[in-house]
Amino acid sequence: MSTRRVAGPEIERLIQLLAKLPGLGPRSARRAALHLVQKKDQLLIPLAEAMGVAVDQVGICSECGTVDTSDPCTICSDPRRDASTIVVVEDVSDLWALERASAVSAHYHVLGGTLSPLDGIGPDDLNISKLMERVESGGVNEVILAVNATVEGQTTAHFITDQLARFENVKVTRLAHGVPVGGELDYLDEGTLAQALRARTKF
Amino acid sequence: MSTRRVAGPEIERLIQLLAKLPGLGPRSARRAALHLVQKKDQLLIPLAEAMGVAVDQVGICSECGTVDTSDPCTICSDPRRDASTIVVVEDVSDLWALERASAVSAHYHVLGGTLSPLDGIGPDDLNISKLMERVESGGVNEVILAVNATVEGQTTAHFITDQLARFENVKVTRLAHGVPVGGELDYLDEGTLAQALRARTKF
Repeated sequence: MSTRRVAGPEIERLIQLLAKLPGLGPRSARRAALHLVQKKDQLLIPLAEAMGVAVDQVGICSECGTVDTSDPCTICSDPRRDASTIVVVEDVSDLWALERASAVSAHYHVLGGTLSPLDGIGPDDLNISKLMERVESGGVNEVILAVNATVEGQTTAHFITDQLARFENVKVTRLAHGVPVGGELDYLDEGTLAQALRARTKF
Repeated sequence: MSTRRVAGPEIERLIQLLAKLPGLGPRSARRAALHLVQKKDQLLIPLAEAMGVAVDQVGICSECGTVDTSDPCTICSDPRRDASTIVVVEDVSDLWALERASAVSAHYHVLGGTLSPLDGIGPDDLNISKLMERVESGGVNEVILAVNATVEGQTTAHFITDQLARFENVKVTRLAHGVPVGGELDYLDEGTLAQALRARTKF
């Protein structure tokens, strides 16, 4: 906090750990720590308890790879979801983002990253063989590759498509590219515009 | 997170509590929660422990009113600090901010707010009588009123100055007003500029 100590090391440790959260820098971590210790009953104690529960209960779903407090997870064990469609995502944050869009009521599969030979990340480092197992066990009609529109994401999509080619009854699809809803053409890159033109639809 | 559940209620509760931290909104709280549960060993467990320690050990210093894990606090019990000067601040965050500036090595007194008749906050709701006790017990030469340059802050400063008037040997001072270091005149309000002109010093 400064060369001189203004509080015990326990508070400085709390600040240092809070600063590791995404979205909090050193300054806002200090504010957050102060807020916590000044709202002990309303915030610090409940949050410490919620974290303790998370430490004890949160794990990885052995079916789809998402994080949850149950295994199989809330999604995999939801009978109202269409188990014949698997949406493949890179990360749990992508799964949560798609769920917020409420566009599909399917099952998911979290890869845990993308293929990246330069970083030494090969197929065995991703949750791909479990995906093959799930498709192989039957009942899957469609695999939607909802990976990021980056080079690594697309490379990973191509690899998985190749792997899934042997399942002739399984349709492999990917997200549409185009102009984001609410997006202004002037601010979009040429690649997106070219793709949006090529994939134009009847008005 | 959405109308449909994507994870157990324990994770949603963690997100809701994290969203109450200053600097984190609902979106960044979700990102923070995911980061925590995905970095269980490196971050979630240490942070949960640090919060547990804070729950058990953090309290209010009975001398100056700051938050710390010891009572009297790190500052009040530091023999290298000048105990004859007390810097009066509204809140602990102001104390921490002044300490970062390393401009003074004195003792502090945290009021816990400002006088605000409209909000029903009177002298008895602030940590003022303890300040009088500290000054009365002797050894104090100067009280620096480092309150905010707001109407409430200045009202509080005037009130404390009146209360301290009976201690004839105690000098009561306040922070200088003027142009912030690095500040551009064009962006400053008229009040600050007028005060900076009135209080001009020889170059």
